[in-house]
Amino acid sequence: MGDGFAMNGGDGTYSYTKNSHYQKEASDSVKGMIEEAVISKLDVEKLLSISTTLTIADLGCSVGPNTFFTVQNLMKAVENKCSHSNSNSKTCIEFNVLFNDQSSNDFNTLFASLPPERQYYSAGVPGSFQGRLFPRGSISVFHSSYALQWLSKVQLPHEFMNEGRVHYTGAPSEVVRAYSDQFEKDMGVFVSARAEEMVRGGLMFLIMPGIPDGLSHSDSHTPSAVLFSFLGYSLMELANEGVVEKSAVDEFNLPIYAPTVGEMRKVIERNGCFSIETMELTNPRSQVGAVNAVSLIKHLRAGMEGILTAHFGKSVVDKMFIKISEKDQEMWRCFEACNHTSTQLFLVLKRN
Amino acid sequence: MGDGFAMNGGDGTYSYTKNSHYQKEASDSVKGMIEEAVISKLDVEKLLSISTTLTIADLGCSVGPNTFFTVQNLMKAVENKCSHSNSNSKTCIEFNVLFNDQSSNDFNTLFASLPPERQYYSAGVPGSFQGRLFPRGSISVFHSSYALQWLSKVQLPHEFMNEGRVHYTGAPSEVVRAYSDQFEKDMGVFVSARAEEMVRGGLMFLIMPGIPDGLSHSDSHTPSAVLFSFLGYSLMELANEGVVEKSAVDEFNLPIYAPTVGEMRKVIERNGCFSIETMELTNPRSQVGAVNAVSLIKHLRAGMEGILTAHFGKSVVDKMFIKISEKDQEMWRCFEACNHTSTQLFLVLKRN
Repeated sequence: MGDGFAMNGGDGTYSYTKNSHYQKEASDSVKGMIEEAVISKLDVEKLLSISTTLTIADLGCSVGPNTFFTVQNLMKAVENKCSHSNSNSKTCIEFNVLFNDQSSNDFNTLFASLPPERQYYSAGVPGSFQGRLFPRGSISVFHSSYALQWLSKVQLPHEFMNEGRVHYTGAPSEVVRAYSDQFEKDMGVFVSARAEEMVRGGLMFLIMPGIPDGLSHSDSHTPSAVLFSFLGYSLMELANEGVVEKSAVDEFNLPIYAPTVGEMRKVIERNGCFSIETMELTNPRSQVGAVNAVSLIKHLRAGMEGILTAHFGKSVVDKMFIKISEKDQEMWRCFEACNHTSTQLFLVLKRN
Repeated sequence: MGDGFAMNGGDGTYSYTKNSHYQKEASDSVKGMIEEAVISKLDVEKLLSISTTLTIADLGCSVGPNTFFTVQNLMKAVENKCSHSNSNSKTCIEFNVLFNDQSSNDFNTLFASLPPERQYYSAGVPGSFQGRLFPRGSISVFHSSYALQWLSKVQLPHEFMNEGRVHYTGAPSEVVRAYSDQFEKDMGVFVSARAEEMVRGGLMFLIMPGIPDGLSHSDSHTPSAVLFSFLGYSLMELANEGVVEKSAVDEFNLPIYAPTVGEMRKVIERNGCFSIETMELTNPRSQVGAVNAVSLIKHLRAGMEGILTAHFGKSVVDKMFIKISEKDQEMWRCFEACNHTSTQLFLVLKRN
């Protein structure tokens, strides 16, 4: 949700388009669960009694292609559902798909790669989902995958520095609390906005990083904690070499947060407009073989380069990625040694 | 409507953003007429009884800023209308604005320049309006300014060449007929698509070039005819100098058409879903002082460079604009001597 830090655009070596297959894997890992939820929980006949258009919005869609697979899966599930209920609803239904991301997202690339054979109307909706994006009661299905972990900002207590780190991994409790508080605020705003935009009976699918209740936020034995630690190590090495000011590293905090199941439940229950139909932690990599360190680093770059460059400048970021690459085997060992790997939070919410 | 030939993007010297004040003038010249039509013809209470969202779509919006002025005017007119009728409808109304243009339009620039203070939801809808773009019955107000003159293609009779010209201005009747037939087809498809997409009682505003009944299409005494003739002359000079093949000039036909009032009426009446509330020819320049030849040529370039470059290549097009600039005084004299200057067709259609 950091304003102006979209994923890398275009289709070059470090573009999101070419470096988003882990996100694709994540999507694939929940595909079955989404289909099942649509079949068992979406009241298509009720929705179609209000309008023959079923509108799906993907929040934080980036530039594709993952968003197109997601939409295709959702539509297919709805069509399956229709074919098992009322033949009437199947024939007249029209799908409308709204692709949302920040204004700085590369919508030109997104639009150029829209599948020509698509069976839906489509529009791009620029703007932060930390606020209203769509008219009242206009959305039947919300989907958001790996976007809600971005906080709108991170504000540490006055004169408190997160020394030698770029994240709350391994940090003191003051740092963790600043992140948690921000998550609660941001997620609260998000859920309120969606509650207004959604049709009653509509479904919202959220996929994002999460951790189990009881695990400390500063624990460094999750896959993302490993990545954020190595980002910090590499920047500190550059600071020691005089390439970057140490204070620049201390001041910078990646606005990325993985809530516990309990934290997420609290925000949704406080809002009160949604029932929690499903909420579970899964391992997004459970279905696939080994990933490789080189492609892992490219992915990190496609997603983080924008925000890092805005703070440190291009030259420092280039050098930082070289440092990380030099440590790829060490990082890989830490990655493999993680004992908490079920860090993908999957939610199905239904609008009361 | 020519696929892939959007107005020049970005914000450089020849960009549409910086060279569209004639289009702005055209908008301004019909502003009062649009306001009046909204006040006297839009049944806001009926529309709001179906949904509290009023959706406006601007077809062929390009990259702004004209589209933002247009939308602002429309919204203000609707709000005025509401304040004079039922105070209830004013408080709950939400505006949703859909900006449409071809997929190759520079939507990134459009989104970056959306007015931050806007009081409406917004989305970009990529695709040709020569076909369905929106779900059934989802649009309350359509607007399209200086877009419908673009034909989807121009196909001359077999083995017929439009020698030494790039348009039907001054051309034999076979050429004119090919253009007229295509307009009838394209406009028919356009009107059918909009009829499905529009709410009953909704209004459609169309502004485009047109000519009076009785004037020959090949007549060269209209302002656009002058521009197209000078495009042709300059290309033929380049052909005589060997810079471009003469056959390349003969083969090329600008897919731009200005219908007569009667031709437009025929297409709409044949469709049968709309009543013609207003249809008139006006002079878009009637309210302003002299334009100047240099800026006229820049405007021509912002709008035509894409399609010309695709056919002739960048180097020829650059040289062609130099040729035209050399003839600017001569062109200006012809421009001033036009005896048919009411060439802006303004339509208000209401969905039955």
